[in-house]
Amino acid sequence: MIPPVLALTMGDPAGIGGELTLAAWLRCRAGQGPAFVAMDDPHRLARLAQHLALDVPIRTVANAAEAARVFPDALPVLPVPLPAPAVAGKPDAVNAPAIIASIEQAVRLAQAGQVSGVVTNPISKAVLYGTGFAFPGHTEFLGALTGLKEPPVMMLACPQLRVVPVTIHVSLRRALDELSTAEIIRAARILHRALKQDFGLKQPRIAMAGLNPHAGEAGAMGDEETRLIQPAIDALRAEGVVLHGPMPPDTMFTARARGGYDAALCMYHDQALIPLKTLDMDGGVNVTLGLPIVRTSPDHGTAFDIAGSGKADPGSLLAALHLAAEMAARRAAFSGAKP
Amino acid sequence: MIPPVLALTMGDPAGIGGELTLAAWLRCRAGQGPAFVAMDDPHRLARLAQHLALDVPIRTVANAAEAARVFPDALPVLPVPLPAPAVAGKPDAVNAPAIIASIEQAVRLAQAGQVSGVVTNPISKAVLYGTGFAFPGHTEFLGALTGLKEPPVMMLACPQLRVVPVTIHVSLRRALDELSTAEIIRAARILHRALKQDFGLKQPRIAMAGLNPHAGEAGAMGDEETRLIQPAIDALRAEGVVLHGPMPPDTMFTARARGGYDAALCMYHDQALIPLKTLDMDGGVNVTLGLPIVRTSPDHGTAFDIAGSGKADPGSLLAALHLAAEMAARRAAFSGAKP
Repeated sequence: MIPPVLALTMGDPAGIGGELTLAAWLRCRAGQGPAFVAMDDPHRLARLAQHLALDVPIRTVANAAEAARVFPDALPVLPVPLPAPAVAGKPDAVNAPAIIASIEQAVRLAQAGQVSGVVTNPISKAVLYGTGFAFPGHTEFLGALTGLKEPPVMMLACPQLRVVPVTIHVSLRRALDELSTAEIIRAARILHRALKQDFGLKQPRIAMAGLNPHAGEAGAMGDEETRLIQPAIDALRAEGVVLHGPMPPDTMFTARARGGYDAALCMYHDQALIPLKTLDMDGGVNVTLGLPIVRTSPDHGTAFDIAGSGKADPGSLLAALHLAAEMAARRAAFSGAKP
Repeated sequence: MIPPVLALTMGDPAGIGGELTLAAWLRCRAGQGPAFVAMDDPHRLARLAQHLALDVPIRTVANAAEAARVFPDALPVLPVPLPAPAVAGKPDAVNAPAIIASIEQAVRLAQAGQVSGVVTNPISKAVLYGTGFAFPGHTEFLGALTGLKEPPVMMLACPQLRVVPVTIHVSLRRALDELSTAEIIRAARILHRALKQDFGLKQPRIAMAGLNPHAGEAGAMGDEETRLIQPAIDALRAEGVVLHGPMPPDTMFTARARGGYDAALCMYHDQALIPLKTLDMDGGVNVTLGLPIVRTSPDHGTAFDIAGSGKADPGSLLAALHLAAEMAARRAAFSGAKP
């Protein structure tokens, strides 16, 4: 039996991660949210709580089981000591190995079944690159840590909408060049499986976006719909996946249209993220699909400019914790149901 | 003194235009909305009102002044006879010349100062193409009718957001190829002038979108921001235009971000239309900027599939009528203030 405790990573200690962790414990402690263990430096968290006048007792623990017992009374911390003191707003490359170690240890605990999933606080890639970190971001690093042969897939989720971009952090021109039937199929399969195993949907309905205005109007404004997207739809339908599309990108995110599907597969970054962030800036959660472990994160960055001020909104981290706990429970039930 | 009457065109008589016109009169007649004169076939409107059991008396008028007097008691119509009876859902190319004549006559009245602006019901380009109509749509046709040397600019407006796409009805790949500093500057100037003269803003604030994810992250994901957009921003600022950007496209349409600008200049169709339609599917208005006359239209098509059923929502046409009336009043005041 996996104890219902999530591992929460440190993120960049010069960013808002620490204060979000403290705020999240205050909101989750009394059974109003999932239990978690911080993979962090207990001394820096204690100092931060004091600085922000937050009544958060910090307790160093030895394992996740102890964390579960401690959680109602104190924020449990599995120690990841920082080489240099964390200074709000001033990232320090000296701490990069600890930032990375926090992620690695959280993933190891999840792989060992000691925590039910991993929630990551925001990192700054620029800080990590200096020490040889060679991944475009968390998502790819987690793929490597868990031994994936293909990159995982990014989902953004808010209460009104779930989106998955097929191409992600590349220029729009490169996204057009890289878009392929194979990549669309790959992302759709991973999304379809996740909607079943992690989101509890028996027969998920996926909305496939077109690429061009009005989904190309039958080739009048671009041929990617007929050349790349429709063949992917045909192949996926042959596998039993329920799909709508290619849908005109501008009308597929209205409230009415959203009622007709469970997640939208989008062709490029902003096609997915514009509607999501327009609908819900603060409650968005980043979910990594296709990993052997559950992983979510808040949908914002380190916010060095407001770090240490206590102004950071913990809404997205709380949503990430809740969603990770739900996904973990559903995945366990799904594995149980289909051994 | 221009009488405060708008000209409302017929649109495709097989579409929902007629029933929207009838519904709009019922909502506007008692002073709750602007007065307008329909450029339409009075017999087909009378039959449609009877079919839908709408109590809308139809009155043929000779000019706009008479229309203004008639409007409180009956729907005034400047007759544009249809060669063939209109059949809901069955567009007929035989009626194409009348559809075009309705637009031409409305524009002539506006140019002569007899109506304060033109509101157009939806047309089907496919129906018109058969008769030699050579324009991509209303907007370009109106540009030609009013003798513009350069194409006008399309704005979509809803209560929460105004957007102007620099490139419009072309494939995404062609939009990338066609985007230029000159076109960005041209659209921004027309937008800036319209925000002052038609929207009553003394010092309009324009948000300039980036093209790439995260606005390119200083060249890491695409160079259009540094190569094309920033030079346009610099040139426009030198002319005194207040601009923000290039802004990351995914975060610039949140409620918080929208508070910082009066209109967003977007690089391609869906970058503009996704956030607008996500926010407000039914109240969106299409506004043509850069014309010598005021022109708006509802932000939807002919909806042949529901035409004649009375199900069509007049919300967007009503919003188009209200906005046209406001713009006409502001433009008149602006001309008066700055002769």
